[in-house]
Amino acid sequence: MSDSLSRTLKKIKPLDRKAMRVAQARQDVLTKPKGSLGRLEELSIQVAGIKGQIIAGFEHKAIVTMAADHGVVNEGVTLYPQEVTAQMVSNFLNGGAGINVLASLVGARVVIVDMGVASELPPRADLMCRKIAYGTKNMAQQAAMTPSEAERAIEAGIEIVETEMAKGLDIVGTGDMGIGNTTASTAICAAITGEPAEKVTGRGEGLGNEQLAHKVKVIEKALALNKPDARNPIDVLAKVGGFEIGGLAGVMLGAAAHHIPVVIDGFISGAAALIAAELSPELKNYLIAAHLSAESGHKILLQYLGLTPLLKLEMRLGEGTGAALAMAIVEGAVKTLAEMATFGEAGVSHSLPLKRK
Amino acid sequence: MSDSLSRTLKKIKPLDRKAMRVAQARQDVLTKPKGSLGRLEELSIQVAGIKGQIIAGFEHKAIVTMAADHGVVNEGVTLYPQEVTAQMVSNFLNGGAGINVLASLVGARVVIVDMGVASELPPRADLMCRKIAYGTKNMAQQAAMTPSEAERAIEAGIEIVETEMAKGLDIVGTGDMGIGNTTASTAICAAITGEPAEKVTGRGEGLGNEQLAHKVKVIEKALALNKPDARNPIDVLAKVGGFEIGGLAGVMLGAAAHHIPVVIDGFISGAAALIAAELSPELKNYLIAAHLSAESGHKILLQYLGLTPLLKLEMRLGEGTGAALAMAIVEGAVKTLAEMATFGEAGVSHSLPLKRK
Repeated sequence: MSDSLSRTLKKIKPLDRKAMRVAQARQDVLTKPKGSLGRLEELSIQVAGIKGQIIAGFEHKAIVTMAADHGVVNEGVTLYPQEVTAQMVSNFLNGGAGINVLASLVGARVVIVDMGVASELPPRADLMCRKIAYGTKNMAQQAAMTPSEAERAIEAGIEIVETEMAKGLDIVGTGDMGIGNTTASTAICAAITGEPAEKVTGRGEGLGNEQLAHKVKVIEKALALNKPDARNPIDVLAKVGGFEIGGLAGVMLGAAAHHIPVVIDGFISGAAALIAAELSPELKNYLIAAHLSAESGHKILLQYLGLTPLLKLEMRLGEGTGAALAMAIVEGAVKTLAEMATFGEAGVSHSLPLKRK
Repeated sequence: MSDSLSRTLKKIKPLDRKAMRVAQARQDVLTKPKGSLGRLEELSIQVAGIKGQIIAGFEHKAIVTMAADHGVVNEGVTLYPQEVTAQMVSNFLNGGAGINVLASLVGARVVIVDMGVASELPPRADLMCRKIAYGTKNMAQQAAMTPSEAERAIEAGIEIVETEMAKGLDIVGTGDMGIGNTTASTAICAAITGEPAEKVTGRGEGLGNEQLAHKVKVIEKALALNKPDARNPIDVLAKVGGFEIGGLAGVMLGAAAHHIPVVIDGFISGAAALIAAELSPELKNYLIAAHLSAESGHKILLQYLGLTPLLKLEMRLGEGTGAALAMAIVEGAVKTLAEMATFGEAGVSHSLPLKRK
């Protein structure tokens, strides 16, 4: 493992228990029945543990959306042609995609990163180019990438977070774009959780039954051929992963190393979280699962990580759209803790023992 | 039934099917796989049906939070003393409550209405006084209010919506405050859905097992004594309801009559929706269920109404807090429909038949 990656992993510490106790104590004297804000209370305490204090809100928010292509599309596992990855990057940069609208809604900037799109993208100041290669190799025939490329993808993600921190970054969401990336993510999910491919393979953008069965076979073939080592996340990423998935794992690790909460989007971000969490056992405390996507392996993956999604809206678009929406919930959690009046401040009576007539 | 109420009920029309077809057709050419925004797509189509067109967003949002007291607190069914209702109204007006923080997060104003708080509240320009009486009567001993008071409560809600429309009102959320109002809402829920009190009674602000059993008995007694007529919602409201519950039913009816979508909060708003939906069979098409509260009867109530909640965050605070958070989701739905680029505009390829090697 490279020095740079090791240094980042060493920086990821347990949450600050003292700050969490202070946050819990404040929750208990705010003007509401104890626990009545439900998951908002849990979230506010988690964020206090990440930040080491109760914070007023998130001034600087970003969704990092990483794009890359996948050689496995040659196996016919998708409904869209590979060129859509590059076309959607252009759509992101022009502000026309779902993530642009939803990030704007919650006041988050969108950071678009080319981690390995198959074509040359026209250079633009607002496109971060971290291209590891022009798409992965076809994992049904060979390893998707080399171990060195896998590490470089993760490091690129760490470096993106550090670059964004210079502009201000209080919370980050993760997003993806890559035709074929549910296939890679499913293979990662099967490799790390140990579940059979059949159980964790979903319909991606809308495959029919026959197409789904074919996708399962392709994933089984890739796993049988490459034999990824479940205990070695770099090996899994290299053999059956993707450049954007490695990059997103890096974003998660880089953010955690700098005490920044990470809202992870759907299935692709979940696969990245599996890689990242195998590299750092403390990582998952820094993660907030945005939503349960319609992709069937996602539930299994989140259970494996011990994360409970905030939203369940049958979304399966990716791009970070679920993460953006969930940021509104996380911000609500942080702001209620910071801004609500206490019983004492508001002159509101505490609860009393129940009187019986 | 009064002329004013009849006029409002007559104004509530079926949704605009043509606008919904136009919205669906636009969803299908936006740059995403069809259906991949899940419930956001459904919501955007519902809102188009309510408004009669695709809209750019909600410029003017309000949460109407109605407060009142309940004579049934004399039976010892709550953990907080009755004075907390008035204290919390003061907290709302001073900006210290959960609803203030969450409404501000989504850019909604909070409209506080005294529908029947047991004490005299100091007059303030920002407190709407529509006091029907100083709290209801104890429903375990007599009817909670007269039929005339029940109608006046509903009419006050309609009138509040019409007053707020003058300031601009594109979407409204409902909220409540009233010590004892889960008891009244549970009685309404049991009366209208026909479910036994035991099945729909919850722990309110945190009752223990023995206290819960007592609450069930009080509700059973109120139902047995008053015999509310399930087919006559005014009778149900009068016998076992509350002034804020009637007011919220009026808000829903008034909003629907004026093509304004209503985001209903938790269990208390749900009970108001039961009353309102019995008065107008078209009403439920104008309602968006914000969240599934931790209160046990809520799920049964929403199923009876045919509504699926957007959020499930174990919240049980009331005040409109769930409605405020859900407004962010609804706004995301409307804005993605209005603002996303189409395949044609963005130069993105449509899906293609799956190729096989």
